[in-house]
Formats: sequence, C-alpha cells, structure tokens
Amino acid sequence: MRIEVICTGDEVLTGKIVNTNFSYITQKLEDVGLAVQWETTVGDDRENLLLAFRLAGQRADAVIVNGGLGPTIDDLSQEIAAQAAGVGLALNEEWLRTMEEFFRRRSRVMPPNNKKQAMLPTTAEVIDNPIGTACGFALDIGRARFFFTPGVPRELKRMLEEQIIPRLLAKSGLQTAIHLKRFHSYGLGESHVDALLTDVDKLVPDGSVKLGFRAHYPQLETKLTVRGRDMDDVRVKLAPVEREVRKRLGNFIMAEDEQTLEGVILSALTARQGSLAVVETFTSGQIAARFAHQPGAEKVFRRGVVARDLGEIFAAVGLDGDPPEGELTRETAEAVAQAARRRTGASHALAVLIALDDGPDRIDFGGTICLAIATADGAESRRSRILGGREWVRLGATEMGLDCLRRYLQGLPVAERIDFEKT
Amino acid sequence: MRIEVICTGDEVLTGKIVNTNFSYITQKLEDVGLAVQWETTVGDDRENLLLAFRLAGQRADAVIVNGGLGPTIDDLSQEIAAQAAGVGLALNEEWLRTMEEFFRRRSRVMPPNNKKQAMLPTTAEVIDNPIGTACGFALDIGRARFFFTPGVPRELKRMLEEQIIPRLLAKSGLQTAIHLKRFHSYGLGESHVDALLTDVDKLVPDGSVKLGFRAHYPQLETKLTVRGRDMDDVRVKLAPVEREVRKRLGNFIMAEDEQTLEGVILSALTARQGSLAVVETFTSGQIAARFAHQPGAEKVFRRGVVARDLGEIFAAVGLDGDPPEGELTRETAEAVAQAARRRTGASHALAVLIALDDGPDRIDFGGTICLAIATADGAESRRSRILGGREWVRLGATEMGLDCLRRYLQGLPVAERIDFEKT
Repeated sequence: MRIEVICTGDEVLTGKIVNTNFSYITQKLEDVGLAVQWETTVGDDRENLLLAFRLAGQRADAVIVNGGLGPTIDDLSQEIAAQAAGVGLALNEEWLRTMEEFFRRRSRVMPPNNKKQAMLPTTAEVIDNPIGTACGFALDIGRARFFFTPGVPRELKRMLEEQIIPRLLAKSGLQTAIHLKRFHSYGLGESHVDALLTDVDKLVPDGSVKLGFRAHYPQLETKLTVRGRDMDDVRVKLAPVEREVRKRLGNFIMAEDEQTLEGVILSALTARQGSLAVVETFTSGQIAARFAHQPGAEKVFRRGVVARDLGEIFAAVGLDGDPPEGELTRETAEAVAQAARRRTGASHALAVLIALDDGPDRIDFGGTICLAIATADGAESRRSRILGGREWVRLGATEMGLDCLRRYLQGLPVAERIDFEKT
Repeated sequence: MRIEVICTGDEVLTGKIVNTNFSYITQKLEDVGLAVQWETTVGDDRENLLLAFRLAGQRADAVIVNGGLGPTIDDLSQEIAAQAAGVGLALNEEWLRTMEEFFRRRSRVMPPNNKKQAMLPTTAEVIDNPIGTACGFALDIGRARFFFTPGVPRELKRMLEEQIIPRLLAKSGLQTAIHLKRFHSYGLGESHVDALLTDVDKLVPDGSVKLGFRAHYPQLETKLTVRGRDMDDVRVKLAPVEREVRKRLGNFIMAEDEQTLEGVILSALTARQGSLAVVETFTSGQIAARFAHQPGAEKVFRRGVVARDLGEIFAAVGLDGDPPEGELTRETAEAVAQAARRRTGASHALAVLIALDDGPDRIDFGGTICLAIATADGAESRRSRILGGREWVRLGATEMGLDCLRRYLQGLPVAERIDFEKT
C-alpha cells in the first residue's frame, strides 16, 4: 500500500515552524508497520494545494493531509478537497451542533466564522475530533483515500491514533493487533546495539517482530514492533524477544516505554523515602533541571549546587581548605558528594565535576568527568573522558551523572565502559 | 521565480530525524526575499527520486536538493540527477584530488568507497564544499536549475549561504545587496509587536524593507529584511527603520542579531568585573544552565543554588529562621538575594522564587513568581503571575529572571507589564 503525506500551511513552508507533525505521523505509521513513501509541503495556496492533491491521488493508495481545517480565510483544505474530488461543499449540521456545544461547554458563543469548519465535501466521511473544532474527514481523490487532519499537534495525535491508523491498517489488510515495545539506553551507539541484538527478531520465525532504533544523543531508543492476530498473540510473540533484549542490553537499559531516566530515579528514591542533593560544575544546572521540576520531585530533591570553580564548590558544600592541586580525581568527587550529603542531610548526593580542555570549542574538544554518589554507607565513583565539543561534553556528562545514579539505586555497577568515552 | 526544495533520505522520510534542514533552507531564503513554493521529501529510492526530480524540473525555475551525496550505496543523488538530466556520470579528477587532500590533512587514507563522491553528471557545475567530502553541484533538469547540497547541516549551511543564495539572487534578478536585521524581545506577543510596529517598514517608501517575525516562546524575533543596490544603500535604508523599531520596542529589546540574552548579561557583568549568584526553585537549575556554561562565564558565574523548598533555600543562603508563613512576597525574594550575595561574595545575586498552584498539570495551571536582584546598593524586585501549564510557567520564569537581570544591568526599570502575565 502506497502512503503519502501532504503538509499544508505557510508557517511550515516558510520554516517559521519546524515540521514536527510530519515526523510524528511517519514515526507512528512506522511503529505499526506502515511506510510513508512520499511527503509534500505546500503553503496556503489554492493552485499548489490542488496540484498536490491531484498528484498524490494519482500515485498513492492513501494520503494523510495535515492542516488547513481552521476557521480563517487561509484555511483551504475542505474547499480544495471538494474541488479535487469534483464534488461540492455542504454544511454538516451535525458538526455544526458539535461545535456549538463545544463553545457552550466553555461558556462562550461560537464566532460566526467557525461555521466554515462544518462545510465539508458532500462525499466526506466525518472523522471525529473530540478535543477541537476542526472536523477531520476522509474522501476519495483519484485512486487514493484521503484523510484530512488538523494542524494542532494534540488534535492530530488523537485523530491519527484513534481513527486513522485503524482505517489504514484495515485498508492494508495487515493484522490489526500491534504493539510497540521501547527500551531507552545510554552509553551504547546505534551500530553497537544493532550488533548486540543480531537476530533477536528471528526468535519469532514468522517475521512479525521488527527491530528498529531511534538515536537522539546521548540516548538511544530500541524499538520492537510486534504484530499478531490479537493482543494475546502479540504478548506471546513479544515475551521471548523482550526477554532476550533485556538479557543482551542488560544494565544499559535505563527506562522502558513512557518512562524517563529522571522518572526512574524519582520513583526509586521515592520508594525508599530518599532525598537527593546534586553538585555540578560545567553541566551548569542541567542535571538539577532534568530532575527537580518533576511532579513529586519537590518531596525528594533537597538541594542543587552549581559553580564553575572547584574552590567555590568546596565552600558551598562546607569542605575546609583548598581543592587539591593537579588533575581532577575520583577522590575529590567522593569528598564533595559526601560533604554535600552531610550539609543537606539528603540520603543520596550526586557530584559531577568536570575539567574542561583549554582553548576554543572544536570537534575534538573534551572534558574529564569525575563523578561520585555518596550515601551513609560510603561513596562510589567513576572517571571518564568525553570528546566532541563543549555541548557534546555537557550533554554526555549530564546523562552519565543521572545514569550512574540510576545504576547505583538499582544495585548495578556504577562504572561500565561506554562507547562515547575515550581512555 | 518559482523555487522548490527536495529533501532526500530514509531517515527524514521515516521521521527518525526531524527535518530541520528544510526549515533552515526556507528561512534563509525568506531572509533574502526568496520564497519556496513547494517541498518534497522522498527516501533513498531510485524510482521516487527520479519522479521527484522530473516533476520539480517541470514546475520550478530553481530546485535545491538536500542529501544523498555521501559515499554509501544508498546515496543516490548524483546517479539519479544524471539520469533525470539525460547525461552520464564521469569521475571529476579535481574533486578526487580535493578529497584525497582532505583525508591527508587529517592523517588518514581515503577509503575506496569515497571515490563515488567524485562521480558527477557530465554537465554538472561543481559547487565547493570547503569542510566535507560531499561535492555540491548544479545542473539543469527540465526547465529548472538544480542545486545539490549535502545532508550534514554545517556543510549545507556553508554551501547555501556562500554559494547557492548568491546564484539564486543572480538568477532572480533581485538586487543582490541584502541584509537581515534581527531584534530579540521577551514579554510582548507577536500580534502586539506587529501592532506596535505598524507601518514601520513604510518609512522606506520603495518597499525594500520587509518586516517579519519568528515566535519561539518565550522569545520573539523581529526581523527586518532590507534590499538595496549595495551595502551602503542598504545601510541608508535600514537606519531610520532600525531607529524606529528601537524607539517603539524600547526596553523590551534584549538582544540583537547573533546576541543572546545570556550573552548580553555575561558581557555586561564582565565589563564591570562583576560576578553572579543565582537562587532558583521550580525553574530547577534552568537559569544557571542558560548562563554558566558559556565560554567566559567561568570567570563571572559564582554560585547557583536550587531547591524546591523555601526552608532549604533559606538554609543554603544562610538566612536564619524559617521562611515567613503565607503568600510568597517580593520582600522574601529580596532577603534571599541579599543573603546569597553576602554568602558568595558575588557582586550581583538573582533570586527567582515560585509558588506553584496545587493539583495536576493543566492549561490554566499557574505560578506566582517573586524575583529579586541584589547588589551592594540594595535590591530591586518584581512579582508576577504566569498561567499556561507547568512547562509554560518554568520557561516563562526562567526568561523573566534573566530579562530582569538584563534590565537591571542596563539601568532600565526591572518591572514592566508583559503580555504573558495575569494580574
């Protein structure tokens, strides 16, 4: 089945906004085993819209159109859809009532120009939008089934997942029970994980498990898409593969599915009624910023200290004397973490200290990271070196600090060699 | 002149990466007065690439193609370009030598598969890539001039700005002296600024100054694109408009052109040999993270303190006793900033305290912000309330804290009513 996507709107075409709706749509389709072949972006322009609809209608079996369903004069999708399909527009009384009710529930009166959103091509099948006034719809243009969706991301997401993907799966004849299992890891590159997981999908011989990746440094997402007759069948197929992925990636899996690394740490600390102090240098507050704003973190996050100068760090955590001369060491990081814990009374303290290379930013600019985690039982630490420019070092050190804390809380070795460090 | 863009590559088509190259290209073209009419994304697929090239070659005057110039087997741009143009491929000896030299300078031997990058359509005009091995080129397909660019963002940027935009401007017949002047502001919404700047572009009656905006909450970018015979002409035209924008937006302009808010603050503090301490609550380290990592900030940033609990803040800055009961006040923020300054010895201290609403995140979730800036001369403070969900409050408070510090350092009133706050 050939699927195309058409994105509309001057804001996307001129780059005022980055087209994240498209990457969202195509990822979601990939996740259920459907592939997008072609994407077109055009502005709020009658001639280009009509041509885009006609060309896609000649080539594709299914087309998802995003945007242009709003109430303003530059929202043209219904009008041009009708023109391309060779039909007229008519007021959909039911959608008009839905909209009026939408405004009434918000104690507002519907502005007259919203009526335009209920003008649909006469052959359109309405696709519900439970959270907005833009009416989704489907109709045939050329040889393709077109699905029209709103530009507002949360409305698009809901409509795509609940209404359009099931229709596409039915049309494609694919089995409709589908599940996406995700693992989040830090420290191993995509090609390394790919090699580690060789043939893991072959554990289910019928090809219904597909392995994929999405890298966004410093994290990597490993995805298993599983298809089956029904959800029971999916679970049976997924179980051995999931088990094998956990075995092979082991300690590197820091979160699964909707979990985040910082959320996993928050849960682990909350469960043991723990609390956290954080000390940072070049990461500059980024570690605290990942953790402390989370709902529930107000009960766990005790204190964060940021300074670029090690002497200032010593003063802030109440360590007497000057920092030792010479290279940054794990011992210094341990002393800082212990002192931070004592000073704040937190059950856990994480200190991430960084000695940056000299000179201007460049591709081989690096930083030496000494980090430590302290509790009443003592301290654990690691030393690492990351190259790749200032921002790369900062992102990597932030992730490494949080991941070592996660490892510590889960009783795993804090230091394990990763692909991003140099020795 | 009709311009189209074709983005190629499975990673973009499947959404593994968000297509920021396209928004970059189209913005850059907008900035010099050129408009993109149509964008197409296709994968690393011979049939779709050929069709995309042919269709664009029928419709457009100029086409920018991005990606597919690499050394691997799925990089197809040269091959399909030659096919679409009806010409052959030939080894470009000069580019081969350029690549060999590229590797030699890095003390490496060129891998054999890189030779593919020097195979160009016989009618191609080489477009230099001074920082990579992907050779840019231009040739005619159908009625359009095609420009082929690398997918690596920094290589694309350099080639677009130095090589392709001048060629497009020459082809379009537009005057080629063009300048983009940018103002960055915080606190006024796009429609408000648009109203404030009504007819500012009319100060130059010949239409050669164009006003535009780019909103990325909480900042707004106001852009003036000026065209002229030469740069002297551009400067003459820009001067009165620039003056008027500064007059009308006044204290709200926090940075211009390549400047950033945090960079402006760093320069102002560096110039007076000042130093900075920051105290944060719900912003969770985000204020420190914006500032303290900058090159040069190691000399200026003294210390950051983060806590979610006001009692913990008091302890961290050395204030005796418990925080006052009841509503958060400006006086408390002033006391915290003063104490932070005393404790750290910094010349300036910024305290941004936030009382969050209760309950789960929602669209009207809000926070009350009390912030203060303290120096040896005393303290200034402001109180504000921002609604719009947890993340909106966090971003807004971070920006407000930094912008008030900027205002203080520039001798401007710290508190001026902004569009994002409720009273």
